[in-house]
Amino acid sequence: MNKIYVAGIGPGAYEQMTVKAAEVIKSCDVIVGYTVYVDLLKEYFPEKEYLTTPMRQETERCRMAFEEAKKGKSAVLVCSGDAGIYGMAGLMFELSKDYPQIEIEVIPGVTAALGGAAVLGAPLGHDCAFISLSDLMTPWAVIEKRLLLAAEADFAICLYNPSSRKRNDYLGKACEVIGRAKSPDTICGIVRNIARNGETMEVLTLDELKDMQADMFSTVFVGNSDTKLIDGKMVTPRGYRIKELTENI
Amino acid sequence: MNKIYVAGIGPGAYEQMTVKAAEVIKSCDVIVGYTVYVDLLKEYFPEKEYLTTPMRQETERCRMAFEEAKKGKSAVLVCSGDAGIYGMAGLMFELSKDYPQIEIEVIPGVTAALGGAAVLGAPLGHDCAFISLSDLMTPWAVIEKRLLLAAEADFAICLYNPSSRKRNDYLGKACEVIGRAKSPDTICGIVRNIARNGETMEVLTLDELKDMQADMFSTVFVGNSDTKLIDGKMVTPRGYRIKELTENI
Repeated sequence: MNKIYVAGIGPGAYEQMTVKAAEVIKSCDVIVGYTVYVDLLKEYFPEKEYLTTPMRQETERCRMAFEEAKKGKSAVLVCSGDAGIYGMAGLMFELSKDYPQIEIEVIPGVTAALGGAAVLGAPLGHDCAFISLSDLMTPWAVIEKRLLLAAEADFAICLYNPSSRKRNDYLGKACEVIGRAKSPDTICGIVRNIARNGETMEVLTLDELKDMQADMFSTVFVGNSDTKLIDGKMVTPRGYRIKELTENI
Repeated sequence: MNKIYVAGIGPGAYEQMTVKAAEVIKSCDVIVGYTVYVDLLKEYFPEKEYLTTPMRQETERCRMAFEEAKKGKSAVLVCSGDAGIYGMAGLMFELSKDYPQIEIEVIPGVTAALGGAAVLGAPLGHDCAFISLSDLMTPWAVIEKRLLLAAEADFAICLYNPSSRKRNDYLGKACEVIGRAKSPDTICGIVRNIARNGETMEVLTLDELKDMQADMFSTVFVGNSDTKLIDGKMVTPRGYRIKELTENI
């Protein structure tokens, strides 16, 4: 049985890849991916064979990888961040019925929520929710419902795909919904270009966040009611009783 | 200014560590951590100096690391999974006011939700929530509220700390709460000993999950209303319209 890998390569820097992802990319014959991420990999693995498809051609990209494996080549489909969190692993399994002779192995990676959190401090130190603001595949009504319920549950929230050219007001809309259940003073953060050139981070309040302009390389964090600003970092304590615990030391 | 690292080492296997985490552990003078995770590291980095504290002595463990850095040693505090998701990064920032001369750098890692998801297939392919069932630091009322709202929001859910000796009925209690808003047929999964000896996975329904016995090395996944079983794997599609998209290929 041929094997095909679906590997998360982390936010972008070679060193934020797992040892396993780097080994698999090194050892495979063909690397398949979205043009932008493949360009990052070419820097680290210049001698490999690459196949790319542009954005939104996810199904074609998956089939391209399966076809290479079918030919007997060892192939890895690469995803930015993790292979599963808003990645291609699910679509690969959905398409796998057409390629019964090929086994899929998923290699996890550091998703943007984790990579961005490390830059901001520790914004996701307690229960949290990841919500994508892209309505390309999900009706806005579902997104809005999730934002509101996540806010009511006092989750720390990480927003993926907070904006794009066509959706440049979505972050503001999302903050308005979250603001129905969270205080305008809630500590929030934005990280741009995680682990890449031009990485920036900013900590601000929910009220300030709603007027910010994010782009498709931004990841946005909204704290819970315990999240605080410590020396420029966004920190969500691990539990509600940590305050008592640390006071007694 | 001295620097101290807080590094997520992933689920346990060396190869699931990031390249950066492995490099930092290799280069630091002292590695501080919880006994169980340090024992894993000793296999891969036998020549290092290790300092450990048992479970629940998190504050002591953090201070131990700071004290080493204060002495001028390069130190890394290691966490299983990610440094931020239920990790030590937040507590380090909370204690940092006592060590103003030491800078903290957080190194993200593959948290159990991501590592376990890769074993099960792609259970977290769409919006998701992470909830810990440990009521050591969080009142059960808060946990219950989050479980119910996450279920109402139709999030895919990953449950951390689903059980322990003292809390062996918590997974059942959590399933009962989730079952108020999700169908008993919802596809769920359990992974034990992710990326370690004795790794196992099982896909089952929510109704079956409520009678399962988890342990402290288990991570539990509850699907959303679109999650399906494909060839033994638990798969949550990336979006609500993916069905139409893939039907037209």
